[in-house]
Amino acid sequence: MSAYWAELIGTMMLVILGDGVVAGVVLNKSKAKDSGWIVITLGWGFAVAFAVYAVGAISGGHFNPAITIAFASIGSFAWELVPGYILAQMAGAFLGAIFVYLYYLPHWRETADPAAKLAVFCTAPAIRHTFANILSEGLGTFFLVFGLLAIGSNTFTEGLNPLIVGFFIVAIGMSLGGTTGYAINPARDLGPRLAHFVLPIPGKGTSDWGYAWIPVVGPIVGGTAGALVFKALFG
Amino acid sequence: MSAYWAELIGTMMLVILGDGVVAGVVLNKSKAKDSGWIVITLGWGFAVAFAVYAVGAISGGHFNPAITIAFASIGSFAWELVPGYILAQMAGAFLGAIFVYLYYLPHWRETADPAAKLAVFCTAPAIRHTFANILSEGLGTFFLVFGLLAIGSNTFTEGLNPLIVGFFIVAIGMSLGGTTGYAINPARDLGPRLAHFVLPIPGKGTSDWGYAWIPVVGPIVGGTAGALVFKALFG
Amino acid sequence: MSAYWAELIGTMMLVILGDGVVAGVVLNKSKAKDSGWIVITLGWGFAVAFAVYAVGAISGGHFNPAITIAFASIGSFAWELVPGYILAQMAGAFLGAIFVYLYYLPHWRETADPAAKLAVFCTAPAIRHTFANILSEGLGTFFLVFGLLAIGSNTFTEGLNPLIVGFFIVAIGMSLGGTTGYAINPARDLGPRLAHFVLPIPGKGTSDWGYAWIPVVGPIVGGTAGALVFKALFG
Amino acid sequence: MSAYWAELIGTMMLVILGDGVVAGVVLNKSKAKDSGWIVITLGWGFAVAFAVYAVGAISGGHFNPAITIAFASIGSFAWELVPGYILAQMAGAFLGAIFVYLYYLPHWRETADPAAKLAVFCTAPAIRHTFANILSEGLGTFFLVFGLLAIGSNTFTEGLNPLIVGFFIVAIGMSLGGTTGYAINPARDLGPRLAHFVLPIPGKGTSDWGYAWIPVVGPIVGGTAGALVFKALFG
Repeated sequence: MSAYWAELIGTMMLVILGDGVVAGVVLNKSKAKDSGWIVITLGWGFAVAFAVYAVGAISGGHFNPAITIAFASIGSFAWELVPGYILAQMAGAFLGAIFVYLYYLPHWRETADPAAKLAVFCTAPAIRHTFANILSEGLGTFFLVFGLLAIGSNTFTEGLNPLIVGFFIVAIGMSLGGTTGYAINPARDLGPRLAHFVLPIPGKGTSDWGYAWIPVVGPIVGGTAGALVFKALFG
Repeated sequence: MSAYWAELIGTMMLVILGDGVVAGVVLNKSKAKDSGWIVITLGWGFAVAFAVYAVGAISGGHFNPAITIAFASIGSFAWELVPGYILAQMAGAFLGAIFVYLYYLPHWRETADPAAKLAVFCTAPAIRHTFANILSEGLGTFFLVFGLLAIGSNTFTEGLNPLIVGFFIVAIGMSLGGTTGYAINPARDLGPRLAHFVLPIPGKGTSDWGYAWIPVVGPIVGGTAGALVFKALFG
Repeated sequence: MSAYWAELIGTMMLVILGDGVVAGVVLNKSKAKDSGWIVITLGWGFAVAFAVYAVGAISGGHFNPAITIAFASIGSFAWELVPGYILAQMAGAFLGAIFVYLYYLPHWRETADPAAKLAVFCTAPAIRHTFANILSEGLGTFFLVFGLLAIGSNTFTEGLNPLIVGFFIVAIGMSLGGTTGYAINPARDLGPRLAHFVLPIPGKGTSDWGYAWIPVVGPIVGGTAGALVFKALFG
Repeated sequence: MSAYWAELIGTMMLVILGDGVVAGVVLNKSKAKDSGWIVITLGWGFAVAFAVYAVGAISGGHFNPAITIAFASIGSFAWELVPGYILAQMAGAFLGAIFVYLYYLPHWRETADPAAKLAVFCTAPAIRHTFANILSEGLGTFFLVFGLLAIGSNTFTEGLNPLIVGFFIVAIGMSLGGTTGYAINPARDLGPRLAHFVLPIPGKGTSDWGYAWIPVVGPIVGGTAGALVFKALFG
């Protein structure tokens, strides 16, 4: 399997499990309804760990354009592979969101709130505030990239490392996720947002395109900063 | 100990702990009453990990006909052992459910809702919807089998792998369990359903046989698909 | 350090952390008040893991007469050490409970319910039912001893094993704890019960001596059965 | 990178993630609002694990003057490095708190309760009681230092040890945190308290300087006692 396919499948898995846990917590009649932040944060962490275990060894398990760009920016990843990786990640995230739509098919009609339905697919800020929202997405991704480099300088798909990465995601979610919902990944946010836009979800509202650039720009800037600072500190 | 006995004992342990956590959360007067989805999902995950640690090394730790069939379908497990494995898993699940009945003996009378009592033994869909329910059970088992193959191509009973498998189950439960309650295992659902049918549970209702085929067919189809896709991708 | 001292200190640590998490959840004005079953079950699990990491390597990290007797009953532990181990465990559990009393000193007066105060020290059944209560304590300890033998035939104090043991305790607590509160350890129950009896706790009620024999007999019988079954199965 | 810089950066990370999780749980409009003690205790545990993974290998990953002094007191750490370590830890904790202020910038105005805002930065006792409060902070740090020495006599920054350390912090938080909020680290409490004092937080109240000495003295005394007892027991 090529690395591009691994990124596509891995990101699809990530979004199925990650958007899935949000769907379980927010959609009406779900057995996981209202099980709260502990389930969302652990669920996203295990989603990342699962995807890295499943196909991470083939592609490095980025599943995230911010990680791909960050690693390229410090010479740990070939720039010529970056466009293909990002395309695969975007496609995987979009397809994963389609799956989540089908998976929770009878639940959409049962859920009145359009914001809850959008929340399954992509993030929204607790309080709209451009500076603070970008800082949130940037700092969360800074920590993610810094942590990934720390536990193995670009090789974090072996042994227990995927589980450790999962706990990193839990840490970022619990500690930094309350403000913007920690996209910390442009593909994870933009792909499913596009799916929300095109899917025939009953009673859906806006896809909130005005906010869409923040979980793209914030993670890319923050992740790259994380890589550069890591390299400056550890050479 | 023969592999068949290991499958019987392991599946019995799995069901005692797994049905046990549901009983603890839904039966009246239990100290764990209403502790919610986080306890159910972690509890089932640790139940699987525990059973694999206890006797998994002897039989491969399937405890699940969908896994046995999926592994056989890609040549990772001998077809001639499949009937005995499934029989042992079904018997173990049935016996485990008997144990859970005895374990929570004084609690059945305290619990009025027949659906809560049935939920201890087997799954029920949040919304009845044949297509979506089969997709739920199928996709959950697809992930399970794909993940198991990814972390060791059929050898996941050593070192920390049982714990990782436990976290896989937690991931599937949190992210994909809200729709049908993630049986993802025909024996885990059908064996205890049969026990519910024959046991003298005070005030019990129907065993919901109309739904019983979905957590059998869904996991077998989904698990086999997971194995075939894994093999197609990784050879 | 002698093994006896290790057992005393380890059981003391176990009870400080384990009774401590119950105190945090049930005593008034605690910051952890009403944080529920998830905190109690994880807290007890990490308490055991912590104590085994701290001093388990010296004595084998039993901290539990039911484990000591079970191991001796299959020849994995010398009978002549058993009395000293049990004495050390009982003394450690008693001293640990004294510490918990001092630790939460200003919280006792703030808590009205005598049952809540007793629950910090020892277990009580959700429903009094001699057969079911003994079965609960017995089966929980059966699983514990079987699991310990499975992950290392009496050597579970190295590497990540203490953490795995902690997750076993979490599994038993979540799945089997709702009925009697999973003492699964005579010292953990009897030692602190004695401390409750002698300590000047404001507004305390009975120490419930009528129930005290069940978390002693149940674990010893169940744990020994677990060891014998394990030996019969695995030789 | 020098060890001093590692201590500064690590303590800053620790406080960003640790104070961050409290902010997420207590500040109004946060998506993590009211997610409770389970999120706070796991969040702080993963915060510590994250910081140790990130930069712990360079400095030993103390991030805590009580650990630094405790290790020095038994000859496991050079006394001449102690002042620099403590200064770096204090500066890192102060800077981390500034980051948390910026990170949750729009949330301060939305939160009325001054005590909630102070709780983001530093600890306060559930019940003011000098003896019990010092015992709380002391015993928690005693356990922390004893546990750290037990899992590797001063080398706990490799492999899975940072994760185990994280679970130690979770154990201490769940079991011993309900009384004073488990600072168990003078820098983690005093640095952010100073930041609270100087920052222009809307509607902030007192920085509670009258209590500030307890989470300094308690951890230093308790941590040093933990190291001395460990050395006395294990030589």
